[in-house]
Amino acid sequence: MADVLREEREGVFRDGGERLSVVDVDVHEMLTSIRDLIPYLEEPWRSRIEVNDGFKGPPGNPYAFPQPTGVAIQDAVTDDGSPAGSKLEMVQEQVLDRYDIEPAILNSLFHPTDHQIQPEFATALASAYNDWIVENWLDREERLRSSITVAAQEPHDAAREIDRAGSDPRFVQVILPAVAHHVFGKPYYWPIFEAAERNDLVVAFHQSGGTRTAVGLPPYYIEWHTAISQNWQSQLISLVAHGVFDRFEELKVAMIESSWTWVPHLMWRFDYNYRSLRREVPWVKRLPSEYIRERVKFSTQPMEYPENPEDLYRMFEMIGSDDFLMFATDYPHWDFDSPKQALPHSFPRDLQRKILRENAREFYDF
Amino acid sequence: MADVLREEREGVFRDGGERLSVVDVDVHEMLTSIRDLIPYLEEPWRSRIEVNDGFKGPPGNPYAFPQPTGVAIQDAVTDDGSPAGSKLEMVQEQVLDRYDIEPAILNSLFHPTDHQIQPEFATALASAYNDWIVENWLDREERLRSSITVAAQEPHDAAREIDRAGSDPRFVQVILPAVAHHVFGKPYYWPIFEAAERNDLVVAFHQSGGTRTAVGLPPYYIEWHTAISQNWQSQLISLVAHGVFDRFEELKVAMIESSWTWVPHLMWRFDYNYRSLRREVPWVKRLPSEYIRERVKFSTQPMEYPENPEDLYRMFEMIGSDDFLMFATDYPHWDFDSPKQALPHSFPRDLQRKILRENAREFYDF
Repeated sequence: MADVLREEREGVFRDGGERLSVVDVDVHEMLTSIRDLIPYLEEPWRSRIEVNDGFKGPPGNPYAFPQPTGVAIQDAVTDDGSPAGSKLEMVQEQVLDRYDIEPAILNSLFHPTDHQIQPEFATALASAYNDWIVENWLDREERLRSSITVAAQEPHDAAREIDRAGSDPRFVQVILPAVAHHVFGKPYYWPIFEAAERNDLVVAFHQSGGTRTAVGLPPYYIEWHTAISQNWQSQLISLVAHGVFDRFEELKVAMIESSWTWVPHLMWRFDYNYRSLRREVPWVKRLPSEYIRERVKFSTQPMEYPENPEDLYRMFEMIGSDDFLMFATDYPHWDFDSPKQALPHSFPRDLQRKILRENAREFYDF
Repeated sequence: MADVLREEREGVFRDGGERLSVVDVDVHEMLTSIRDLIPYLEEPWRSRIEVNDGFKGPPGNPYAFPQPTGVAIQDAVTDDGSPAGSKLEMVQEQVLDRYDIEPAILNSLFHPTDHQIQPEFATALASAYNDWIVENWLDREERLRSSITVAAQEPHDAAREIDRAGSDPRFVQVILPAVAHHVFGKPYYWPIFEAAERNDLVVAFHQSGGTRTAVGLPPYYIEWHTAISQNWQSQLISLVAHGVFDRFEELKVAMIESSWTWVPHLMWRFDYNYRSLRREVPWVKRLPSEYIRERVKFSTQPMEYPENPEDLYRMFEMIGSDDFLMFATDYPHWDFDSPKQALPHSFPRDLQRKILRENAREFYDF
């Protein structure tokens, strides 16, 4: 099966005679520093950054990364010490060109939602960030799409930002951090889903510096990174239990970097509980697994690699759909996946094609 | 395959000609009220309860249960309004006799670890509870074994209680609540594991009123009950990452009511992270999955029921061991499992026998 997706030159796949560009649903662009946003901010927020009094933006990941190159994959480390992911040329060379990727979706790791004070400042930072993305990334490279950054703690303001930025079709989704202090199924947050639906945008979840586990922030990064899928699980449970999918019938949700082999367990357990306990949530009209199967997609990265690769395919089958999974590199991070190596070669040819390309194209309507 | 474990009269299984009594690793005995402990307490703690000023013991589950009979299965509801599980006769009739169970392990839902103030009071409550168990349960029914209740917030005091109660061989394990505010891998808690190992006792984890998810206490019970396995996951990750299994080479751990179909995902993800990040935790000498496979057992209940029962067996195979699972009823709770129905009949005959009986007998050395 190794020749299913033949590599004609480095990174360019062909399926039979047809060129098969890959869709990458998770690339992280980075600010060089918070000062990059100065041109896009009004007062009084502009001065808050200009005077350079130590404000660095919303809190980032607190762990020292136990990899030789920190959080970055080796290739993505810059010569001048600026953050990995902050240079468009490197994204072009190392992602778009090298693997013939088109489009790649930029997912911000800059989450004003995690800025727990001064919500108007958070909202201003979100708008500035979206303007910065347009000018420095989308206008300079047509193979890119982007998420809309919001300050979700003020859902009505976030909805206004979604309407504003969402008028540009290069924004394809709204990104929310999978964190402990916002439980997004609650009606308080519904203006965000309403605005996403109104603008035909996906709502995506991704970890941030505010991501916690069932025991908070554990001492070691390896613990945190092993456990954090719990956050997406809890957000997904919240969306279903609060009836978000019943209320917003067109809403589509992407779980980015959540991993996905926990999905069968969660579907089974949630369905079992629903059968016994549904009188607590009478607005949920169908089995939880049905909403998940029909309305939610997951990204490949991080993939898991069981000793027996067949186990991964069995997991896939258990979810009962062949369109739930979308390829992601997670560039520029240490656990970057190449489209050449992410999927076991034993996955059926059609399925590989769907994961590497078709599922995302259909979901995002590219 | 339906006749694999033939039922000769209600609840009594025979495998060929041999009587096959079942081992149940999770039955919950309950206090009628905190006043049951008065005879086992010294001053000043005794008066704290005797004056009846409203103290009801450590916090319990805060949710109103959305089942017609509350948290209890219908059979276990008492005539006089006392808590389900508080009457030995009902446990005898509905568990031990009805299903020919011997032994059943009592797991306290009374967790002084969750009493976050006055640690000496918590320690006194734990001792009183263990004495109450001996006199009211173990001395009255020889088919019962029990967990030792501790106040884990003071690990040295907990270790002393383990030495004291553990001299009675009817105590077979130490039970700890899977909660957010104690992360049990940390060296602070090691006196507990040291005492358990010294007394040849298993350490078990079970949910309590302090159990939280990655988003804390979500609004609905169905959310909480779908997500709480996150707690056992985080405690397990903590034990491995902090080197508890390396330090205590004889330590055995039981995950009770954690469910288990999340285990393949966690093993794969943890192993992947270990391969990349192990320089952060150099005291962990082997792949995380190896500790889990060799030192940790899980209880059946709550079982999940995928549409295709084969999926459950596939999950089982992915864990790569046939002795990790032990049958539990979870009497008297609403999601009680009967040994007649818990396992898919398509599970191989030998495996059913191991799960219903042999695995627990070997693990607890009955």
